[in-house]
This record gives sequence, C-alpha cells and structure tokens, in this order.
Amino acid sequence: MTSRIFLSTILSCICCSLFAQENVLSYVKPITGTQRMGHTYPGATVPFGMVQLSPETDTLSYEMNGKYNPDVYKYCAGYQYEDKTIVGFSHTHFSGTGHSDLGDFLIMPTTGTLQLNPGTADHPESGYRSRFSHSTEVAEPAYYKVKLEDDGILAELTASNRVGFHQYTFPASDQSHIILDFMSGIYNYPNKNVWTFVRVENDTLVTGFRQTSGWARTRIEYFAMVFSKPFKEYGHRNYTNDVYKGFYRKFDQTKNFPEMAGRQIRAWFDFNTTAGEKIKIKFAISPVSTEGALKNLRAEIPGWDFDQVKQEGQALWTKELNKVHIESGSREEKENFYTAMYHAFINPTTYMDVDGQYRGLDMNNHTANGYTNYTTFSLWDTYRALHPLFNIVQPKRNADMIQSMINHYDQSVQHMLPIWSHYANENWCMIGYHSVSVIADAIMKGNAPFDANKALDVCVTTARHRNYDGLGYYMDMGYVPEDKNGSSVSKTLEYAYDDWCIAQVAKKLGRTDIYEEFIKRSNNYKNVYDKTIGFMRPRLNDGTFKAAFDPLQTHDQGFIEGNAWNYSLYVPHNPDDMIAMMGGKKQFTQHLDSLFTMELPDKYFAETEDITRDGIIGNYVHGNEPSHHVAYLYNWTGYPWKTQERIRMILKKMYHPGPDGLGGNDDCGQMSAWYIFSSLGFYPVCPGSDQYSLGSPAVDKATLQLENGKTFIIDVKNQGDKNVYVQKVLLNGKALDRLYITHSEIMNGGNITFFMGPKAKK
Amino acid sequence: MTSRIFLSTILSCICCSLFAQENVLSYVKPITGTQRMGHTYPGATVPFGMVQLSPETDTLSYEMNGKYNPDVYKYCAGYQYEDKTIVGFSHTHFSGTGHSDLGDFLIMPTTGTLQLNPGTADHPESGYRSRFSHSTEVAEPAYYKVKLEDDGILAELTASNRVGFHQYTFPASDQSHIILDFMSGIYNYPNKNVWTFVRVENDTLVTGFRQTSGWARTRIEYFAMVFSKPFKEYGHRNYTNDVYKGFYRKFDQTKNFPEMAGRQIRAWFDFNTTAGEKIKIKFAISPVSTEGALKNLRAEIPGWDFDQVKQEGQALWTKELNKVHIESGSREEKENFYTAMYHAFINPTTYMDVDGQYRGLDMNNHTANGYTNYTTFSLWDTYRALHPLFNIVQPKRNADMIQSMINHYDQSVQHMLPIWSHYANENWCMIGYHSVSVIADAIMKGNAPFDANKALDVCVTTARHRNYDGLGYYMDMGYVPEDKNGSSVSKTLEYAYDDWCIAQVAKKLGRTDIYEEFIKRSNNYKNVYDKTIGFMRPRLNDGTFKAAFDPLQTHDQGFIEGNAWNYSLYVPHNPDDMIAMMGGKKQFTQHLDSLFTMELPDKYFAETEDITRDGIIGNYVHGNEPSHHVAYLYNWTGYPWKTQERIRMILKKMYHPGPDGLGGNDDCGQMSAWYIFSSLGFYPVCPGSDQYSLGSPAVDKATLQLENGKTFIIDVKNQGDKNVYVQKVLLNGKALDRLYITHSEIMNGGNITFFMGPKAKK
Repeated sequence: MTSRIFLSTILSCICCSLFAQENVLSYVKPITGTQRMGHTYPGATVPFGMVQLSPETDTLSYEMNGKYNPDVYKYCAGYQYEDKTIVGFSHTHFSGTGHSDLGDFLIMPTTGTLQLNPGTADHPESGYRSRFSHSTEVAEPAYYKVKLEDDGILAELTASNRVGFHQYTFPASDQSHIILDFMSGIYNYPNKNVWTFVRVENDTLVTGFRQTSGWARTRIEYFAMVFSKPFKEYGHRNYTNDVYKGFYRKFDQTKNFPEMAGRQIRAWFDFNTTAGEKIKIKFAISPVSTEGALKNLRAEIPGWDFDQVKQEGQALWTKELNKVHIESGSREEKENFYTAMYHAFINPTTYMDVDGQYRGLDMNNHTANGYTNYTTFSLWDTYRALHPLFNIVQPKRNADMIQSMINHYDQSVQHMLPIWSHYANENWCMIGYHSVSVIADAIMKGNAPFDANKALDVCVTTARHRNYDGLGYYMDMGYVPEDKNGSSVSKTLEYAYDDWCIAQVAKKLGRTDIYEEFIKRSNNYKNVYDKTIGFMRPRLNDGTFKAAFDPLQTHDQGFIEGNAWNYSLYVPHNPDDMIAMMGGKKQFTQHLDSLFTMELPDKYFAETEDITRDGIIGNYVHGNEPSHHVAYLYNWTGYPWKTQERIRMILKKMYHPGPDGLGGNDDCGQMSAWYIFSSLGFYPVCPGSDQYSLGSPAVDKATLQLENGKTFIIDVKNQGDKNVYVQKVLLNGKALDRLYITHSEIMNGGNITFFMGPKAKK
Repeated sequence: MTSRIFLSTILSCICCSLFAQENVLSYVKPITGTQRMGHTYPGATVPFGMVQLSPETDTLSYEMNGKYNPDVYKYCAGYQYEDKTIVGFSHTHFSGTGHSDLGDFLIMPTTGTLQLNPGTADHPESGYRSRFSHSTEVAEPAYYKVKLEDDGILAELTASNRVGFHQYTFPASDQSHIILDFMSGIYNYPNKNVWTFVRVENDTLVTGFRQTSGWARTRIEYFAMVFSKPFKEYGHRNYTNDVYKGFYRKFDQTKNFPEMAGRQIRAWFDFNTTAGEKIKIKFAISPVSTEGALKNLRAEIPGWDFDQVKQEGQALWTKELNKVHIESGSREEKENFYTAMYHAFINPTTYMDVDGQYRGLDMNNHTANGYTNYTTFSLWDTYRALHPLFNIVQPKRNADMIQSMINHYDQSVQHMLPIWSHYANENWCMIGYHSVSVIADAIMKGNAPFDANKALDVCVTTARHRNYDGLGYYMDMGYVPEDKNGSSVSKTLEYAYDDWCIAQVAKKLGRTDIYEEFIKRSNNYKNVYDKTIGFMRPRLNDGTFKAAFDPLQTHDQGFIEGNAWNYSLYVPHNPDDMIAMMGGKKQFTQHLDSLFTMELPDKYFAETEDITRDGIIGNYVHGNEPSHHVAYLYNWTGYPWKTQERIRMILKKMYHPGPDGLGGNDDCGQMSAWYIFSSLGFYPVCPGSDQYSLGSPAVDKATLQLENGKTFIIDVKNQGDKNVYVQKVLLNGKALDRLYITHSEIMNGGNITFFMGPKAKK
C-alpha cells in the first residue's frame, strides 16, 4: 500500500508542476559514458538508490598471474559498449569510478543444457553468457531491456530503492534456468570472495549473504530473492575445496539441498516455460541482514506488476530531474543536460534498510532516525561541484549525506571523516580530506541542520591526524616532502584548501583558535611554489626542490592525476594571491592560454588509467578533476570572456549524448555536475565560499525549483553556439557589476538574466 | 552494580542453605579427564557459561599434507595433561567432545624479544609458548593458575558468563608483551580462518570478530578486550597475502595502526612492567556484535577486582553444586561426584548477550525474551542421561534449552531440530534425531513451560525429513538399508526409539494419528534383528542381511561407535520385547554376562577414535554412549543384583579423580551424568518414560534440593565397596515392590531408603 500511496503523491506533484507536459525522461541517455572512459552503466536504478541493476558485459580479474591486470579498468561499471556479449545482471555498481568493486549477485537466464561457467566473450557458447545487440537494447532511467540472443530470452530490469526487479520472457523450454553466480564480481580476483551463505527457504524464496575483500576490505551484502513462479528443481556447485566439508556429506547435495556455504558458489534454479512466459525475480539487498532484505522487499515491491514498479521508478526520476527545467533549441543540449542530471543523482547511494538500519564502519548495526544514511563517497571528486550542486537542488539529501559522513567519523577507529568510503568501509583512495570541504560548504551556505560545532570538531580532528598520508610532515614543515610521501604537491595544495574550509567554519562559529591555526595552514600552498620555474614543484625533506622535474609529466612528479601545468593552479581559496605569486595577471593569463592551446607531445599520453586524449584540450585535462575550476580563473585575471569561451568549448568537446559522450570517468557525478553548473552559467570555484563564478550559460532558460518552495530563473537572451560571450547580466532586474553570484541570491529565489553576443565584451 | 547485588543474593542464598559449612568446591577437580580420552579442559568457566577460558597445550592442524591428522583428536579441548608447554589461553572450548572446533582468541603473555609464532612443543624457546609444570598449576571451578616458566609469568584466569578475566603477574621488563593470536584455533587448518577484523579503539580497548569455517561452517564470534593498563605500543602481522591490499598502503602499518583485517592475523601489545606488576585483561565475547561484547563486559565485570570476580564465579558453582548434597565416607566418592556435577553443568552453554540477543541459524540476530538461549547440543550423547538429570535438578534451564532447540528448528532451512549444533550452526554430527527424546522427556515429566503441541509438530516434521540420513528408506522400508546408507542398524534402532518418544507425546496430547504413525515406526527395531545369529544386523536394500558380518567389530558393520554385541541391546523403549526376541530372559542374561566378562581379542582395539581399552569392561563399552543403559537391563531379566554389581564395577573402574579419571570422552556431560544418576542409585534407561531404573547407590546419603522448593532424600543404609547389593527399598517409609521409581515420586519430595548388604538378594 505504501508504495502506491507514494506513487500517487509523486504523480500528483508532477501533475501540478509546471513541466508535466514534457517527458523529461526522454532526454536521459543512461548509455552515455558506457564506452571507454566514462565508466557509467546502462542499467536500472532510482535516484540515489541502493540497487543498481545492470548488465555485466565482462568482469575481468583484477590480477592476472599475480600481477595487476590493466584491462580490468575498463570494467569499473561492469559494462563496455563495444562488447558483444552479456554475462548477466548484477545488483550493485558504481557510476563513473576509476577503481572499482561491487557487481554483487549476478543473475543470468538461460535455456538448454545447464552451463555454470560464464564462458568467454569470443566463444559465448562455451558458457552461460549470451550475445546481444544494441539494436534490441533500451536504457532508460529505472528501466533496461535487451534481447539475449543465444537463448532468445528478453531481459527487462527495473528497480525500487532497495529491490531489483527482473522480468525474463522465455521461449518454450523444459530446460529454462536462472543462474545466480556468487563468484562473479567487479574487480574480482581469486580470493576476493571471502564467504557466501545461501538458504533456499522454499520453492520461491532464497536468502543469504556475500562477503568480499576488495576495494572495501570487509564488505558484507545480504539479499532476499523471490521468484514469481516456483522452481521445479535447484542446485548449486561449490567450488570451495579448501574448507572442512564435515557431516554435510551425509546429505545428497547434488540438487535440492537448501544450504549452501563456501567461498565460491554458483546456484541454479530450473523451470519449465511456455513460449513467451515471463519469469520475474524480485531481488532485495540489505547492508544488515537477510531479515532486513526481506523487509525492504515487502515494503518496496509487495506485488508482481513490473510495469507499475517501472512507472514508480521513472516517476521518482521525473520528480528529481524536474528540479531544474531547462529550455533549449538544441535537443542535444537537453540530452546532455538531463543525462548529466541523471548521472549526478545516482551517487552517493542509500545505505540503510527501510527501517533505518545500516552497517557502520565498526561493523555494528546502527539506526538512522529521521534521515537517510548514504554511502559511496568519492569525495576527492565530488566535493568540487556535486555536493555544491546538492546544496542548491538537493539540500535535504546533502545534509543527510553530511550526517552520514559524521556517522562515519563516529564509527571510524582512525577518527577520520570519509576519504573515499563505500559500504561500511574506508578504502582510502585518493588524497586530501575533502569531507571538510563538503561540510564547510553546507555550513557556509546555511544548509546545516546538524550540529555545526560538532561538525567542525570532527573536521579538525581529521585534519590533525598526523599518521595520515604525509599530514604529520605537512603540519610540521608546511608541506609534504616528496621523498617522504609521494604526490606531495597535490597533497600540500589540497590540504591547504581543506584547511581554509575549516578556517571559514571556525570563523563563522567564533572558534578563533581553530581559525588561526587553519588559516595559517591554508597558506601552505606557497611552500611548494618554485618561483624560478613558475610552477608548483615537489620539495624534499631538506627543503630543496626535487631536481629532476617535468611539469608536463603526470606521473612521479609530485602530483596525482594531473601535471604541474594543471595542478599548479590549484589554490581555489586564494586565486588572487596565486595569480600574483605566479607573476601577475598577464603572465597568469598567458599560462592559462598556453594550457588550453599547447600541443602536448605524444609521450605524455601514457597508456595508463585516466590519461587519454579523450579528456584533454591542449594540455588542459578535463577528464580528471584537478582542473575543473581552471577555465573560470580568467575571471580573476581580467579576461572573463576567455572563461566564457573556454567553458563553451569544454561543454561542447567533452560532453555529448551517446556511449562515448564523456571525456573521462564521470566520477560519481562530478563530471556531470560540472556540466550542469557550467551550462547554467556559473560554477563553485571554491566550495566553502558562498560564491559561484560566472561563465557562459549554454541553455536558453533554466528554472530551478528549490526545496524551500522558491524558484530561481536563469534567463539567457540570444545565446547560441556563436553567441557565447556575456554582454550584460541582470540580477532581479538590476545590473550585476561582479563576476559571481552568491548562494543566497539563488536560494532567495528570483532571476538572473544573461545577455549574450558573438563578441567578447572586453 | 548489578553483579554485586547478584553476588550478595547468591551469597545469602548459600548462607541460608543447609550446606553452607562445607566447601563443595574443594571436591571438584577440573583436571579430571584432561589426560588422553576425557577431552575436558582445566580452565575457568561458570555454570553453562559462554566463556570457557582455558590453556591450550597445543592446537594441531586438522589436516596434514591434505589428509586428516589423527593426532588432532587429542586436542579436542586444547589441553593434554602430559604436555609440557602451554601455547596460550583461549576463550571457547567444548567439554569432552569427540570432534572439535572453537579455541577462539588465544592470549599469551611473554617478555623479551617479541616472538609471534607459537613455536614447537619440543623447542618452546622457538616461539611464544612456555614450559609449565603441574606443580604450579591450580584448577578450580572458575579459577585456573599456572606459572609460565620460560618468562617467569604467573597466569591466573577467571570468568563470568560472557567475560574471561586474565591476570598476569610479570617480572620487571621493558619488553613485556600480550600476544593475541587470531590464527590459533582448535581443529584448525590452513583455511579454517575465514576472516578476522580488529580495531584498536584506544590504548586499552580492542574490538573485533573472528569468522571461521570448521565443524561449524559459518561461525562468527565477536569480542571486546580491555587492558587494566594502557599499552605503550601495539602492532600486528597480517599473514594474509592473497587479498587486495588497497590504499591501506598509504599508512605505515608496522605498528600502532588501529585497523587490522585479513584471514591470518597475530597482534601484540607492549608494556613496561615492574617486578610483580599485574596486567589484567577482561575479554568479553558475543555471538552478535562488538557492541554486544561491550555490553556484556560492562554488565558482568564493571571493575578490576580479580578476586571478586573469581569469588562470584565460584559462588555460582557453589549454588549449582549444592543442588545435590551427598554424604560419603569416601573423599574419592565426593570428588568423583562433584567433579561429575561440575562437568554436567558446563554444556550446553549460554548463547546470547546480556540483552538477550543471539545469532540464529539463519545468521540473523534474534532476541530471547524471558529465557536463556543455549548452544552446544551434543544430543546423541546427552539425551540419554544429561537432559533427564536436568529435568530433576535444572528444570528451568532444561526448558530453556528446549526453547533454544525449538528456536533452532524455527531458524533451520532444513526444518529440523538440532542434531549436533553449536554457535548458530548445525554440524550434523552423529545420528538419530534425539532432540525429540529431550523434548518428550520434558513433556512426559511435566517440565514443559513451552507450547507442547508446537513442540510435537516440530518433532514430527524433523522425523519425516526424508532426505535426512537414510530416513526416507526407513520410512518406506522399516529399516535403513546398509547398502544405501551406512551405520544403518544404529540409525534404525535410534530412529525407532525416537519415534516411540514422539508417540508418547502424541498419546499424551491426544494426537491419535501421530501416535499411530509413530508407535508403528517404533517397532522397526524388529526389522534389523537376525534371529539366526541373535544379533541386530545390517540389512540390504533387497531385504537380505549383509553376508560378511562380525558382531565384535565396531567399524563398517552397520553400527557407529559400538559393535553388534553392545548395540543389539538398544531398544530402550521396549526391553521386554527385545529380551523375548533375543531368546528370552535366560539367554539374554547370558548375553549380558558374556558382554561384561568376555575377553575381547586385541585386533578389535583399532587405533581409532573413541575405542581404547580405557573405556571397556570385557566387551562392554562404557567410553561410548550406546551401552550406557545396558547394565540396567538385568532388571528386566530377573537379575537386578547383577545390575547392582555391574553398576558399582563401572562406577569404580571408569571414574576416578585425576587427569586420567574418565574412561572416554565426557561428551558434554553425558559420562558425568551417568555417574551422578548411577551413584545416586537410579538411571533413566528410557528417557521419554517417567521411570528411573534402580541400581546400587554408592553414596551414604544424598539430598536433592529441587527448584520447586521440595527436597528428595536418598538414604543408603550400610553401603560400601562390598555392600553393593540392595536388600530392601523403602519409598517414603513404605516398601517398594518394583525396580524403578517415577519422576513425580522424586519431584514431589520425600525420601527413598536403600538397605544394602554384601550378598545379592536373589
């Protein structure tokens, strides 16, 4: 009942909204970014949903012959558009990450002789996988469909928050199978599967858990799976040969044996099917227990109406997507924009059962009362634009995410806020402690329904963790010495920015001692600037700069996912001082110009993760995050029209609808959030301040429906591919004589009008 | 506070009891049975306690070079009296089992250079283990002490229900260590350890869990450990090389790194100690969570007073042991008796946190409201005498145990009552479904504060499980065919007895159809009797008896842990018919006489588990359970004096205080319960009936303090080593003209007087 009332509420909201006529869903192309570097997935999920039910076209091993297998990187989201076969459909996926995990509970329907191994892409007939064609593939928000050609099975997927819903249309067969493969997983390797426990409760219900040690070191995911039709037989193969078999040997376990446990298990369920018969599966997951999964299942999808669940999921998307209504003469612009909105609203993901229970970092169960607990915090990416975007269009969720981050701190034995965390684990990926930016941005923007003083305290404790990643050196010496801790310049710059965020909050809360400590630390960027060469440069423990140094090289030069040309520009909290330090506005403008226009020699396109020609303009790397604010820096050098020009170029070159439509990993929505902001005409160059730097809006009009009931309208006069230059800006009808707007100016409602033209207004 | 009030309540109870003057604890010798076959342990536990904190003298691998290692059997309880070294002290142990598991969380104090491997028994200096001597060893109920000679450390252990309390007296050293070895375990092998997760919460608190796959396939045990003094440094070695190391590499993990996770981990904690300084450790366990372990710790042992906790534990024992007060001129008799009481009151063990939470067979957390949830059900052993004993002296606990068994059924995906279960796992060890005997015995004796009709239903479902261990054949054919399912005669006989138990309950509850079904099945023992040879004998699927057959041989003859000579006598529910079938009273008496007096040829003492000369009189095997009722069968053949004679012989030969004082595995108290009943003068030959068959009491007087407030006194006139024959019996002053007493005669209170003499009263 709950979900039906919920649906009707949503539907009535939509009906009374301004934009009910337009089917915003039609602009969303989940297939975007599924080719090469985007690392998105095409499957079914609802906004911020716990389940991401999506096809795997392969799941390579992280290791080959004891060494890292670089090909695994392609399969961060389990799907690569160029592949010709589908292995199956699993329930958990990251959207756009550059390292991976998950891919839990792979399901595959087949007919004929049972094959329990997946087979190879070259010879799909050697296993249970199937050929497929993009011509039969449909990927919509909360819906995915594909024909599995080898056995003639139509696969359809939808999902609620915590339940994946499969619908398989079979041919007539007395050998129809559903395979449930617990061995399959993303970034898999022989020992990633720690334990699997499965119970066939009755002839339609299966429960259990899967425990893995991968990017998340101690991860347990529970499930409850129900079939629409009783299976006639079932069985499993236990490939775990190295554990004690015990007195289970007294049973015939070849089939219909309801207990399965081990490291490596595949199960199957057999049916007779008539031609066109649909076998449906509801597959609920839980971070807590199989009991929790069952609760989720019963609460979210009590019935068997696939179309209704699909409609409910799509209604949730419609509601979220309509938070920003754009007008544009270009269908491509609308597709780019709403696909970006879609990708921005996938991560972080819900991480609790319907009753609020979730697993904490301490592996104990906790309860979230009155808010949603989230996981999947790719913070080095998302603090830049995604969380600032949430402060505008998802403030309630963003506050809940921050509460979830504070929960993480409370449960952390390191007493640290999340760095990169997922599924009750800290994976420690990337650098900095950018939770503090997310927290500061929310507090400074007045979106802090949590205890701000406590939030400041946990930021400070995090930032004083001497054993963390060179931080002790940084605190003692004002920079991270490269010979003590690699990527030292990136770390120094990002710590300095994060420290500035802490200082802002301390100042706002009147915590003077903390302000003094951290505002001082925020100047540490100066300590890694080598004025002799005009770049940030790694320093050694003895105070000297590292001798061998190539500012174009990305690897082993003191930076991470960026070279000195890009990363030297990373002082978002003090661009004026940075520009002065780097030779003043003129010289800095030349640096920016060169960055965008230089021709990077071939040798710098190493065949490594994240650095390919897709995401690069000149030497400007948009495919990675450290430069995401860079095009806006012209606003500080007296050349705002260059910002406007560059932004439009990046929007055009780095994004388009289609499988190869993303110039780099979407990184849990950060790339998409950049698109959303920039196409609306402003960008949060420095989260933690209340300012958004103006760029060049690429839409004709945008209406932001704010949670406070107000509306902020962006009206863009005369914009077009050639009319990218801002001539004049009115805020609520009055001329704006600055290059930024503030958060409160947006949240108070009103309108901003950009007048565009084909010539730069110098 | 709770525990102190509790203590004072107990103490006042004891003070007002009749026996306060006598220190019953002094008769308990926990060391009894620690040599060779007894498989008991000498460490500290409270009655039915969740923690059994005891030394390991070795922990061999279950496998050697991929094959079963027969030497592991010695170490079912982790301790062998003949060993010269102690490896450490772990927190969970079975008492007296013939297969094993547990040995969780091994702690060892050392000084000097840190050694993280245990070393070998021959060269203890090669590792952290230490030499010890029995001369410094003290083993009392709830207290154990030993000097660890290598480093001169005095180790003392005590425990509350859920918390082990260690007290180590160190020499002066700036290199004092506490080692916490998660790799150590009983019945260990390379892949038994599935996962270990540890957090050093602060400088005195460590939490985590250990997950194993052994006899219990999916077992997780949580812990919380606190030190009385902050450690100065700590560290761990992670021997897990086959999992993804991830971005933990960004930390220096060599020491003081608070997160540990992997398959194989050893941790250490360092201290400076002055001469005679005591380092104390409280180590709480939980089946549910580290939060649960902390709750247990805080509730049960809030302070640091080792002696007080020891006193509280010993007060608990005093209370339980005083439920039967015996008088005897023989100190050995008292030591035997109270050691047997001690061993009878260890298993089953508490399996829930102080708040009632426990892990179910479905791996979900459940809550026991208003009763104690128990685990460790060695039912093939304990249904015979231990649970019947509980119905007299521990009726509340026995009812709770039955509730725990019904919980097990409710959580079982097989929909079966426990066979041999421990720690939220069914290990399926041994045969039959003897839960039904325990349930029937309680119902028939009026100790059923649970829903008896539901209990009957679950017994019936269990007994109709066609896939279980030959049961389908048994149901169809009236016996288990040996060529389809081994140990077929034992199974047929025990199923028949269990079925009779079900029939009794059905009759009592007026469930006629069930009565008819199961009373018919209870006659199935007839189907495996071969009258041509006068023995029970395996039959084949074609109806014929197995040709090659040796009634003296234990292995591969259709029986388990017994030969045809012993096992053919297993029709406890119908001795009269069995005797008639086997040739009548005279011939049957001759069979019994031969059993006790024949000389078993050497070849039958195979070097295998459970069959050694220790536990055998003639061909009568007391060291295993199937014959435990046999000596009482003379009561049915007109030779009760032979019962009396044999019982006294068995009491004398099979039990004495001392390490080698048990003639076989104590089997979670069954061997001890036999001793208690038999020395009191009666025995439950057929649990599920309300009768106790009379034997020959070996005490001068016994007073049973019943939970209903009544007292049952056994007065024995003139008994002694020579005066073993009963001349006359008075029940409440009136001559008893039968060879049994009933349960209600005991529970109503009163007295029975045995008049003994040196000559058989024929």
